[in-house]
Amino acid sequence: MRSITVKAPATVANLGSGFDLMGLAIHQTADVVTVKERSDNLVILQEIIGDGGLLPRETAENTCTVAIVSLLKHLDSNKGFDVILKKHIAFNSGLGSSASSAVAGVFAVNALLGNPLSKKELIPFAVDGEYVASKGFHGDNVAPCMLGGITYIQSLNPLCIEQLAYPENTFIVVLYQYVKVSTAEARAILPKQYDKAVVIQQTARTAALLTGLNTSNDKLIQFGLGDEIATPYRKQLIPHFDTLETEAMKNGAVGFNISGSGPSVFAWCNGEENANQVKQAWQTFMQAEGQPFEIYCSPINYEGVFIC
Amino acid sequence: MRSITVKAPATVANLGSGFDLMGLAIHQTADVVTVKERSDNLVILQEIIGDGGLLPRETAENTCTVAIVSLLKHLDSNKGFDVILKKHIAFNSGLGSSASSAVAGVFAVNALLGNPLSKKELIPFAVDGEYVASKGFHGDNVAPCMLGGITYIQSLNPLCIEQLAYPENTFIVVLYQYVKVSTAEARAILPKQYDKAVVIQQTARTAALLTGLNTSNDKLIQFGLGDEIATPYRKQLIPHFDTLETEAMKNGAVGFNISGSGPSVFAWCNGEENANQVKQAWQTFMQAEGQPFEIYCSPINYEGVFIC
Repeated sequence: MRSITVKAPATVANLGSGFDLMGLAIHQTADVVTVKERSDNLVILQEIIGDGGLLPRETAENTCTVAIVSLLKHLDSNKGFDVILKKHIAFNSGLGSSASSAVAGVFAVNALLGNPLSKKELIPFAVDGEYVASKGFHGDNVAPCMLGGITYIQSLNPLCIEQLAYPENTFIVVLYQYVKVSTAEARAILPKQYDKAVVIQQTARTAALLTGLNTSNDKLIQFGLGDEIATPYRKQLIPHFDTLETEAMKNGAVGFNISGSGPSVFAWCNGEENANQVKQAWQTFMQAEGQPFEIYCSPINYEGVFIC
Repeated sequence: MRSITVKAPATVANLGSGFDLMGLAIHQTADVVTVKERSDNLVILQEIIGDGGLLPRETAENTCTVAIVSLLKHLDSNKGFDVILKKHIAFNSGLGSSASSAVAGVFAVNALLGNPLSKKELIPFAVDGEYVASKGFHGDNVAPCMLGGITYIQSLNPLCIEQLAYPENTFIVVLYQYVKVSTAEARAILPKQYDKAVVIQQTARTAALLTGLNTSNDKLIQFGLGDEIATPYRKQLIPHFDTLETEAMKNGAVGFNISGSGPSVFAWCNGEENANQVKQAWQTFMQAEGQPFEIYCSPINYEGVFIC
């Protein structure tokens, strides 16, 4: 019986003004999934390591196995698989933890089946998997986790996903604080409606982000990494939001915002040296606060999920 | 006493999902302005040709002279000028008529003064001029009229305008029907607020438009030329809107929408042959309807205002 192990990276979704639409992949951290063929047609989640026993073990309830089952059904396959899931991305961290497990699952199974589908074609099945955790079909974590780089999702049905250009030297610094932001609360806090002027400002930011990425214009990227839909409301759920933003910008970051629905935040930096400066400033501040945290610092991950 | 004559093209603003932000210049039609030095420091609108006597003749009330006065004030200049304005762009047509006169005025005067400012730097003064006609500071007609091409305005203060890439072979077909759409009505008909899902769809369209323009992807451009803010409400003010859209798309247009706040509409076409097909289809339909109209068909005007 053959087996395969794959690694699916953490992602920053709700990328600035690309709320619900855009995301990017980073190098640290990543979920690792091992999939082994079975002699029957069952999909069994044999083990989850690193979740403190908190994630569901039932095939029909875990994002990874739900995604695999959705893929097998589409392929009309009668194969079965054992799954071992090593969680490194904290769930409810705003770093696409559930998307990562789902992507890893379908990517691994597809590889064992001889790659009947492309990475892009696998996305809808990973989105099916993520749905059981997030109750939403967005794909703005799934797409960059699968494909790498920065992705923009025009629509999931029919599937229309674009990989965006970005300045080569871009580094992302992510700060994850060990605080719980309930996804339900992060959703409930958003307005149902927005003023026309706010809509225009949001589209101005989106146009700036796309133009800035294409022309490596930091000023446009900065404006485009701002957001009118979620950030003004969700920032209050994130401890030290304003200080972290000030520290990032004071230390030369191009932009700053919430990763996913938080509590993680990210700084967009031009070059490794700048990224290290921001990382250092955040570390110093968080250590003085005495709150537990993680910092991840890397270039944008251009590859996405891969076979270990 | 020296004089100069300049030509400022018609423009398509509210370009799809770039409502209030994006516009493009076309080749036909254009306003022509002649400016002559005076021996005193007055700015006098000597003559307007082609407006049927409908536009204001007072220096403080005409967009062209208001723009000139605003520029002269900024330059702390004590020069005076006579102005002759030949209107070719119908006002209230949705083709940036008032912006065109304002752009022509400041561009001509700046040239006679030895070009103290760049075209881009002239934009705020043309916007001041347009304000007396439109009562709004947007610049999405002024910018493409001045610079040519497709422009995106991130902000007017501080001035941040980008010229966007677009597929080389793009042709624009504009249909202007002789019907009056009151700007006040076109404004009043828009909602004050929009649902969150609508905001996200609009930003998805904007991201598609920018990505499509950069990668010459017609499918993305088509989606991006759609609009959620104004089109669903204003289309009812434009006779035959649905038929004109159907005819354009049936004849191979990439996209279709309202130009400015109407009544003009435009089709985005890939190549001259396709543009002529759409033009022909619209002509046949409008002639059958027996309504008066104009059709303009040209590549995107990459130059903007120029000295004749």
